[in-house]
Formats: sequence, C-alpha cells, structure tokens
Amino acid sequence: MVLNKGFVKITLAQLNYHPGNFELNTHKMLEAIAQAKLEGSQLIVFAELATCGYPAKDLLDFDSFIEKATAAIAIIAPACDGIAAIIGTPVFNQLGKGKRLFNAAVVIEHQKVTHTIHKTLLPTYDIFDEYRYFEPAATCEIVKVMGVKVALTICEDLWNLDDVSLYQSSPMEYLSQFNPDLIINIAASPFSNTQQETRHQVIQRNALKYQLPIIYVNQIGAQTDLIFDGGSFVMNAQGETIASLKLFEEELQTFEFDGKQFNLTKIENLEPTKDLSIANIEQALVLGIQDYFNKLNFKKAIIGLSGGIDSALVLYLAAKALGNENVLAVLLPSKYSSDHSVTDALKMVQTLQVQHHIISIEEQVNAIEHTLEPYFKGTELGIAEENIQSRARAILLMALSNKFGYILLNTSNKSELAVGYGTLYGDMCGGLSVIGDLYKTEVYELCNYINREQEMIPQNIISKEPSAELRPNQKDTDSLPAYEVLDGILKCYIEENKGINELVNQGYAPELAQRILKMVNANEWKRWQAPPVLRVSPKAFGTGRKMPIEGVYSL
Amino acid sequence: MVLNKGFVKITLAQLNYHPGNFELNTHKMLEAIAQAKLEGSQLIVFAELATCGYPAKDLLDFDSFIEKATAAIAIIAPACDGIAAIIGTPVFNQLGKGKRLFNAAVVIEHQKVTHTIHKTLLPTYDIFDEYRYFEPAATCEIVKVMGVKVALTICEDLWNLDDVSLYQSSPMEYLSQFNPDLIINIAASPFSNTQQETRHQVIQRNALKYQLPIIYVNQIGAQTDLIFDGGSFVMNAQGETIASLKLFEEELQTFEFDGKQFNLTKIENLEPTKDLSIANIEQALVLGIQDYFNKLNFKKAIIGLSGGIDSALVLYLAAKALGNENVLAVLLPSKYSSDHSVTDALKMVQTLQVQHHIISIEEQVNAIEHTLEPYFKGTELGIAEENIQSRARAILLMALSNKFGYILLNTSNKSELAVGYGTLYGDMCGGLSVIGDLYKTEVYELCNYINREQEMIPQNIISKEPSAELRPNQKDTDSLPAYEVLDGILKCYIEENKGINELVNQGYAPELAQRILKMVNANEWKRWQAPPVLRVSPKAFGTGRKMPIEGVYSL
Repeated sequence: MVLNKGFVKITLAQLNYHPGNFELNTHKMLEAIAQAKLEGSQLIVFAELATCGYPAKDLLDFDSFIEKATAAIAIIAPACDGIAAIIGTPVFNQLGKGKRLFNAAVVIEHQKVTHTIHKTLLPTYDIFDEYRYFEPAATCEIVKVMGVKVALTICEDLWNLDDVSLYQSSPMEYLSQFNPDLIINIAASPFSNTQQETRHQVIQRNALKYQLPIIYVNQIGAQTDLIFDGGSFVMNAQGETIASLKLFEEELQTFEFDGKQFNLTKIENLEPTKDLSIANIEQALVLGIQDYFNKLNFKKAIIGLSGGIDSALVLYLAAKALGNENVLAVLLPSKYSSDHSVTDALKMVQTLQVQHHIISIEEQVNAIEHTLEPYFKGTELGIAEENIQSRARAILLMALSNKFGYILLNTSNKSELAVGYGTLYGDMCGGLSVIGDLYKTEVYELCNYINREQEMIPQNIISKEPSAELRPNQKDTDSLPAYEVLDGILKCYIEENKGINELVNQGYAPELAQRILKMVNANEWKRWQAPPVLRVSPKAFGTGRKMPIEGVYSL
Repeated sequence: MVLNKGFVKITLAQLNYHPGNFELNTHKMLEAIAQAKLEGSQLIVFAELATCGYPAKDLLDFDSFIEKATAAIAIIAPACDGIAAIIGTPVFNQLGKGKRLFNAAVVIEHQKVTHTIHKTLLPTYDIFDEYRYFEPAATCEIVKVMGVKVALTICEDLWNLDDVSLYQSSPMEYLSQFNPDLIINIAASPFSNTQQETRHQVIQRNALKYQLPIIYVNQIGAQTDLIFDGGSFVMNAQGETIASLKLFEEELQTFEFDGKQFNLTKIENLEPTKDLSIANIEQALVLGIQDYFNKLNFKKAIIGLSGGIDSALVLYLAAKALGNENVLAVLLPSKYSSDHSVTDALKMVQTLQVQHHIISIEEQVNAIEHTLEPYFKGTELGIAEENIQSRARAILLMALSNKFGYILLNTSNKSELAVGYGTLYGDMCGGLSVIGDLYKTEVYELCNYINREQEMIPQNIISKEPSAELRPNQKDTDSLPAYEVLDGILKCYIEENKGINELVNQGYAPELAQRILKMVNANEWKRWQAPPVLRVSPKAFGTGRKMPIEGVYSL
C-alpha cells in the first residue's frame, strides 16, 4: 500500500445541479473548489454527471451538449492548482462500437485530467434508463490521486451484490485485487422512503466485504419528479458511518485521510432510521416544490383549496417551500360544497396567512349545463355532470395561472390516481403533482406529523370523512373501500408487483381485489396525461412505471 | 449442409396481438396453426413476444404474467402435431445473475419445446427499453427444425451491422460459422415513415453478407402510440425480396423451402418505395385509431371540428377507421369564429356523412369571464382569455364524451405540439393524438393525397390561411414563421438532434432558430401531459423522446 506523507484532506461537495445549465453547474463547482482550497483540502469530490446535471435525459443525444460538458471540465481544470478533483461527466465513446457515450468520472490533478473512468453497471429499471445513452465500461482501473490508490466507482457500480446480482460483473470485485486504499463512489441516487436505508446497507456491505473506507458523494436537488436527497457520507472499513452531510441541502465538508483511514471516530445516530421517514418525506416534497419553481424560474403557486385534506396538505407544503406570500389559495365552492368545506378552508388560509379568493363555480356550471341541455335531456345525472364541476374549477384556476403567472399545483393523492378517482382536465390539472406519490393513509400520517406541535392543518380537515362533494352527500366510501384496505391492496399491486392470486393469498377478498386492480388498470389512460409526480416511494406513477394503456390484465 | 427430403413448407403468420390478452393471442395462434396444417405446412413462424404481445411494458414485472406466457406455450404445443412452430415469448432467467427475463423464441416440434433461444441485442433507445426487462442471451445456437438448420434470431439480433455497431457482439456473425440453411428473424418492429426502407436494407445486408435466405416475420397492429405495420417477407440469398405479406393487415402465407432456397422467383416492386410513404402514413393512422378503440373496447369517437385543416383530417381518418356512423363532429363556434369556419366544417360533415352538433361556447365563456371579472379587471386581453375559449370547448367535448361513451380524438399536429401553440386542457385534450406526429406541412401533404381523386376534405379548408381564431383576425403567422420554415427547423432539432450552431450552419437565421428551439424547450411541461401520439416518424413526441422539463438548453 502506498502511503502519502501525512494526511490528505478530502472535501465532499454535495451540490444541487441543474440539467443543461453548464454555466451554473461550473460556477458552483469552481466556488466549491475555491472554498475547499481555503480549507487546505487536496482533493474535492463531486457527484455523478455533475457537469451536465442528472438526469439530462435526451439532451445527452446532442453532440453540442456533450461538447459543453467537455468544455466545463476544461474550465474547471485550471482552477485545480494544489487540489485534485473528481467530477462526474458524460464523455464520447471513441471505441467505434457500442453506445455513443460513457457515464464517466474524470480525475483532475495538477490542473490536468489524469484519469477518465467509465461506469460499468448502468441501472435500467424503474426511473433509470442509463443504457439508453451509455455504453458500459470496457475496463476498470485503480486511480492514483494525491498519492492515494482509489477504487473510483460511479453509483450503481457498488450495487451488484451477490444476492441481488442484476449484472454479470462487479467492478469493485475486480478493483479490489489491486489493493486500493479507499473506495470513492460518486452518485446520483434519488430519494425514496426506503432508499436511504437501502443505500446505507449497500455501501456498508461493500465496506465490510472489501475492508475499506468509503466516501459516498450524492447530489441534492429536485429534477422535476425526482428528488435527490444528498446525505453524502464517510464510512470506515468497519462499515460504520463516521461522518454524514445534510439531507436535502448543499454542503461541503472536509475530512482528513491518513492513507489508510479517516481521522474520525464513529458518531452515534448517523444511520438512517425509520422514524425519520415521514420527516424526510416532508423535506423531500418541500425541496421538490422549491426546485421545480426555481429551475423553471417561477415564484408563485396557485392551489384550489377544497376544504379537504389533500389540498390542505399541498397548501401547507407550498407555503413552506415558496413562502406564504407566494401562494394563492382559491376556494371554488359549488352548490354541493358543505359549509364546513368553506369554513375549514378559511381556517387553513388564516393559519398559514396566505392570500385567498372565493370564486363560485355556479354561474359557469349553470351555463355549461344550459348549453348542453338539448343533448343531455332525459339522461340521468352522473359522472359527466360531476366532471363538469371539477373541470369548471380547473378552467378558473388555469385562467388565474395564465393571467398572473402562477403555477397550478396538483393535489391528487396516490390512492386517487391509482383508481382514477379524479377528473382528467379537472382536479388532475397542475404543473406538478405534489402528493401524487402518497397514499391517502400517508396523507393522514404526514398531516398528523405536521400537526405534532401546532395545529397547522385544522383538525376538522383531518378528522372529517373524505368527500369529493360533486353530488349531494357524496362520500369517498360510496365508491371505494376504506382507505386502509384500498391502500393495502394498491401497495401490493403497485409497489410489490403482486397479482390477484397473491392478494387473495394475503387475505383480501377476491372480488374486492379484482375490482381494485381493474380500476387501476382501466385508468392508465388518465395517468398518461397526469402531471409529473414528486417521487417519494420506490414506485411512483410517472416515468418509473410504464404500463400499456390498452393492456389486458388478469394478474 | 443437411437437406430435408424434398420441400419444407413454411408459413409466415403475421398477426395482431393484444398485450396481456393471452387468451386472444393463444386463440389466434391456434387458428393459424390449424390453417397452416390445412395448407400442408410443416413449420409456422410467429412474431416476437407473440404470447404476451409487444410492448407489454411493466406487465412483464409480474411473475404471474410470465407464467401465463409459459402456460400459453403449453396450450399451443399439443396442437403442433405434424407441424413445428416458432413463437416469441418471455421466459424467466434461471441463471441467478442478470435481469429477471429473457426475450425468447421457443421452437416446438412433435408437440414439445425443443429449443429456447434468447435475444442477444436488446434495443434500448427511442421507444425501445428492452434492457429494462431482459438479460441479453449468454449464448447463441443453431436450431434444427424439420431438418433445416436455422439461424433463429429475434429482431434487433440482425441489426448490429459493421457501420452502425451499437453493440459489442453480432449473434448472426457467430451463428454463420455453423453453416445454417436459413435465417429466421421474428420481430416486433414498429412503423415509421422511414422504417420500411431501413428494415429492408438491414435484412438485405444480412442476406448478402451471409449468402442465406431470410424469413422475416413482423407483427401488425397498434399498441396505443406504436403502430406495427407487418410487411413480413421472404428474401433470397441474393438479397431480393421474393415474397411479401400485406402491410397493416393480418395474413398467413406459406412458402416452399427446398433446404437451400425458396421455390419462388423475384417479384417486381416488392421493395418499399418513397412514393408509398404518404399512403402508408394514412393506413398507419387508420389502424392506429382502429386498434386504440378495439383494444379498449370502445366504438365511438367525438371530434371538435373547427373548420381548420387539422380537425378536418382527423375527422376523415376517424370516419375511415371507425365508420362514419361512429363519429360525432361537434362545431363549437365563438364570437371569433369566422363564417367560413362553420360553412367549411359543415361541408366536411356533409361529405363524410357524419353526425354533427353545433354548440356555441358563448354562454359558457361569458359566464367564466363574468366570474373572473373582479380578478381580471384592468388587465389586457391575452393568452388567459384565449385559453378560456379553448378550455370551454374541451369541457363540452369531454362532457359529451363522458355522458355518451365517446373517446375524444385530439387534433394537434406536431408543429403545434413542438412550439406549444395549443392550450393544455383545451385543444390538447383527447384520449389519442391522431396527427401529433405530422408536421403541419405533412398535414397538408396528407390532405392533398386524400383528395387526389375526390374532394374528401373541402379545398377551402386546405387553401385558407391557418388560424386558431381565439382573437379577432388572428393568424398562425402572427406568432410563428411560415410552416415550411418552422417545420424545417423543428425536423433538424427533433429528428436529427441538431443544435443551434448546426441550424445556423444550415442557413437558418440565428434569432429565429434560437427562438424556435426555446419555444420547443419551454413547452416540455405541456407535452408531459399530452395524450399518446400515434407514431409515424422516427422521432415522435411521447415515449420515444424524453426531455427534462426543467432542463436548460443552449444547444
């Protein structure tokens, strides 16, 4: 083993990158390098695909996009005097075979790129589609930087463990034979309510298996539906987390490495715990809203406030994310709205101190019904009339959005989206679905968590029976089972890929399970047109779940 | 080379499968086998993933789904007495490493599965994401069936040619060393206006390179946005197409193979030609509509008929696809609608003999504007008011759709979708976008083609200047360049991944090109919520084009 004279100071740079915004990303990295130099650091580590942002999606298909990433490295390299840097960036595949690009990490030392390593394992499942763009590495090599022999790996490269062997090879297994001093893993690993624990376990198993310390650098920030939580950390060769960066925030931290281990002792309570899961979800959603607005250069949100729990929660999260002065709540009562809907909604806006309008939809609904009278006469009141109300609300919200530059936030929850209990072009409207990855039972859980010290969401909104209020005395349970039952079935089906037989074996009534699964399947066409959903579970609706609209299912 | 005694009769079965509908798919294959037996055939060849349909997407993640595919093979095998069969089907990967499944072809002979070969090259680009589900084949082998040595390949397996080497290996190169008698390629290759030619060239290059005859079996039928055109064919070792099945139709054809070549001579004009491209697009769109309705078990379509060219074309295609008795045209005039809009639209419905309603949106628009007066007063008329009209139309169309069970067909074209010249939740509504992959100039081209013998689309609709008619005397050219110019820029950007510098080099004015690209990029959020678009080009909006909403672009 090669030991450096004395210590090497290594900085973990956990930053919020913006896809395609090379200027911003480069600027952030240059600032971090300057800061690290001030701290006497000799090596700074950035995240996966830091130059171009992750996921850059089909922007990667443009030659000029990749050239800009290359140019960013050329701008950063001269700043690396007296400090080395590891930066994730896409590079062209020059081998004449395979995909056009590699997902690479470049090592800069003495102001020059000294190594370019390629990612071997390309996640292509759920929200990942890296094999769409990248060729797997043809070879692996140990990187020597500032005298340290580093097994430099990119995210998934550490994830091919014996019992979940999704790939044919393990780059870390290969690299371990060259006796590295340290594993560095640069990542773009999105948040979910189980991901922090999983990620910690995977990295820990690598530390223990190879008896090596590990530096793990993740990005933070939301990219439309995906929320990256950061939580970069240092682990010792005993698999103990000895330092941890913040969740959901940009941060630099510098640590001393003696060529063999970090000059740190284990800090208690750095392992992620389940208790924190609901708090993390709240933070994730707030960041998800913030970054959607920031990165699109918008400031203000509009929300249709029904008096029900979903829109109340979204209003709370939006006010927290954007500031209460940037949120407009609009109450849109109809003749079917109950008194408590209006009073509860008003109490909510008072508590949060957000601006509000009360705009009746009656005149519009009457006009629509009058216009359609010749065609509808003799028919029974039904879904068509219910949808008219929901869509009348959407028109008014979108008109205010268009006129004054608000983004409409969608308030559908995952249970509704799953069974199609919502109106396409009505309450399914919005630029971003804030709680579309929370089952209704999780909506309650989060509201109760938010109210743990102070009643931010009026208790009556949480306690009362849920209703869409689109016809007299309507209750959600008129058409749906109790949410505890519904959500149980949905979770088995959506997140665990269990079919009807497995559901029945688990104790659900066959007719009910069949009916719910049919509802989920019959509403793929609606979800195709749903807004992006902030992802906080391992399987959200949206890019990570691709179902055929016309598929026939009897699972 | 092993020669069979005399001839082997081989049937190409070009069928329309339905994802997840194992009962239907199995039934179709059993019928085809029975028919082939009547014709004295000894081998019948079905398409890729025929049991489960293609693309089955995340249905493939369910164990029970794969088990049903296995069960389908078990039902079909006993029917294969006196005839062998080659069938595409997913199978579990039992190797303990890699993805869960293989994309397989099973060979049934004497009522038993004698071989299972796996697809080696897994397309993962554009609309394809096979590596999401499948492990590449670990090995290749020649298959002996009815005495013939067959190089059995699955679609992409023949596509790794020297000059477009997207993969590290070429299964056909490997198989060629075992001196096969015949190449069979089972495919699920979707239509685009260039795909038939490309496909023909690729297969021809294989025939010529390996000096072998080739049987190519494709599926037909639309699966939501993807349209499979069939066009299965037999090619001789000289690269000549010697037999060809129909485009866009189910068909069985049986050919005699003498162990070395087919008992056929070259038929003229079987090579695809560019002249046919526009005719094929029409056929593709008609099939796309038909199958969307058939597979979802709907019969009737509703279309908002503006008097403009886009909705006229969609009405024509819908009437052709579903029968004029199953199409309802709704004219939704406003105070900005010109007289010719109504008269042209009425002429259109008369020509096609479809049912129509004329429903004014004035009462609704007045009600909305009155409702919003307190909030809008003092502001200038603009996009908000234009969108209100478009959304008012959508509410009425969706109300009729919900009440009477019509599917609303969307009438946006690709140029509009690209630059965001349309109202989300307004004219962007619909269950299916029929012409969303046709640039406006292609819309004209197709209309002129349709009118080549008889004026099906009133000439005035084609001749007049395009207008959204959302404000007085509005013309598309108020906000957009001439469509010839616009479409040129869009095609470079969307289909050829050319950035701003390349556009300028190609002669486009920098400001204009920059402005158009910015419009395309700024409207990703709208397209996220657009209906599925029938794909007829190599790069359609939808599943094959994934752009970040929040991405910053300066390509």
